[in-house]
Amino acid sequence: MKNKELFLINWICKQAVQRVPRGRKSTIRLGIGDDAAILASPPNGRELLITTDLVVEGAHFQPDTHPARALGHKVLARGLSDIAAMGGTPLYCLLSLCLPSWAGREWLKQFYQGLFDLARGSRVALVGGDLAAGRLFAADIVVIGSAPRGRALRRSGARPGDILYVSGPLGGSALGLERLAQGRSAKDPAVRRHLYPQPRLDVRLAAATAAMDISDGLSLDLYRLTRASRVGADVQSAGIPLWPGASLDQALHGGEDYELLFTLPTGRRPPRGSTAIGAITARRRLTLDNKPLPIQGFQHDL
Amino acid sequence: MKNKELFLINWICKQAVQRVPRGRKSTIRLGIGDDAAILASPPNGRELLITTDLVVEGAHFQPDTHPARALGHKVLARGLSDIAAMGGTPLYCLLSLCLPSWAGREWLKQFYQGLFDLARGSRVALVGGDLAAGRLFAADIVVIGSAPRGRALRRSGARPGDILYVSGPLGGSALGLERLAQGRSAKDPAVRRHLYPQPRLDVRLAAATAAMDISDGLSLDLYRLTRASRVGADVQSAGIPLWPGASLDQALHGGEDYELLFTLPTGRRPPRGSTAIGAITARRRLTLDNKPLPIQGFQHDL
Repeated sequence: MKNKELFLINWICKQAVQRVPRGRKSTIRLGIGDDAAILASPPNGRELLITTDLVVEGAHFQPDTHPARALGHKVLARGLSDIAAMGGTPLYCLLSLCLPSWAGREWLKQFYQGLFDLARGSRVALVGGDLAAGRLFAADIVVIGSAPRGRALRRSGARPGDILYVSGPLGGSALGLERLAQGRSAKDPAVRRHLYPQPRLDVRLAAATAAMDISDGLSLDLYRLTRASRVGADVQSAGIPLWPGASLDQALHGGEDYELLFTLPTGRRPPRGSTAIGAITARRRLTLDNKPLPIQGFQHDL
Repeated sequence: MKNKELFLINWICKQAVQRVPRGRKSTIRLGIGDDAAILASPPNGRELLITTDLVVEGAHFQPDTHPARALGHKVLARGLSDIAAMGGTPLYCLLSLCLPSWAGREWLKQFYQGLFDLARGSRVALVGGDLAAGRLFAADIVVIGSAPRGRALRRSGARPGDILYVSGPLGGSALGLERLAQGRSAKDPAVRRHLYPQPRLDVRLAAATAAMDISDGLSLDLYRLTRASRVGADVQSAGIPLWPGASLDQALHGGEDYELLFTLPTGRRPPRGSTAIGAITARRRLTLDNKPLPIQGFQHDL
């Protein structure tokens, strides 16, 4: 019974148990290691949120330039960002990994280090997962959270007249990816932005009518939000906050900034650091400076 | 905005919404299609169960011999089997897919057909998921269920003196895999057993002290159960129920039968169809007919 799978499972389980954040232990009846995790139901008055997000070698990262620790961080950050976009609180995560031979023991320890560091900061416990061998690296993160009953934010709530906001500067991740390919390190703020995106769990969205996170680019994600809400939007390029050095094109179509895109009724004060970039319209089309907005964000070549 | 990803997402979302089982609708506040699903908390007195299971091309199936519909069935069956092993009721699932170019539109429809057919029979709703392109097929299924508070079954509860049971015949899936490779179809009961395993959600485990599902083979899974319980076990080969035509070796090490392995205190009547195969011992070793039990079940070559 000595092999890499068993070693790895034992190591991960041990790490996961040691690293359950304080305050999270009391609701975990049974953590990682059995057929399923057993969790206390969220208290009365709260609903469950659940999201899953898949990161695949080649499509979402290049193994030769993406550090293992940054990848572990990014995998969890994407799931947490979905919970942030719902106005929720993340509680638990599960991780399934498809592991190619190049992902050795040291690389995996670094990967989990990145994941556990972000989990601690976000008070999230790893309560399950699965491992399999395969010809490429794939990671599927599941994040479970909760929100007050009836208050979780959907993409579908934007109404004509609402003001459209983003929670922070855009284009930094695309710029960082460019610089990473040129060999720059995480000392460069844009590279750091790309490698260690921060899910915006801190943005207070209580008054928002609709929200989503910007993972595939402002243009594509705005298309999705307005489509779900059956509305359109007029965006002003002058309003879009650019990451220092990033182009408008990177801000519009770059993706992976993990800022939040949300709408507020007129007259509502936006959360600190947010910027109005346009308005929601009844007419179902998207414009940028009164011309059609091109939609070019990241899409999988399925 | 016309491409395969968008088409596929729209098609899956539409199917998922149409196929929510009756009685499940009232607890789904928001199903597939947003950043996260919103679900009502299980009622007071019940706890949450959550499991994730990864199926990878090459490791778990061969695309040239495994029909798409059977694969969709199997992916969900594996997750449901984990919930069955906890003595729980499955409620919702989420599915992440890594899709290679060979998985075309028709293949994917068949795949989802298999998944949705089993979901309906098990009263499980698909409430989320993710898609990405990659060089191989990988599917990560998440199943959420519930169980009465404090009553979910763990691997760790077996006590010396308990009787060890399996819920049904073993070795059929290994035999079916062999016959599938020889070109036999699902008309063969063993091939059907391999292609369409039935998660044992029907087995009444209320009195069990420990349980798990047999996915990687009796020997390896028994090793895991006894290790978690800090006990050993004496197994009698004459007691092991064999699938018609299967060898003892296939029953011991074949895997993928998805029967349940569980322990009951002596004197307890077992669920119908279950068979006693041995007894739990304080001495932490495994024997088969008083000789050391070889442990050879399926393990990933990580």
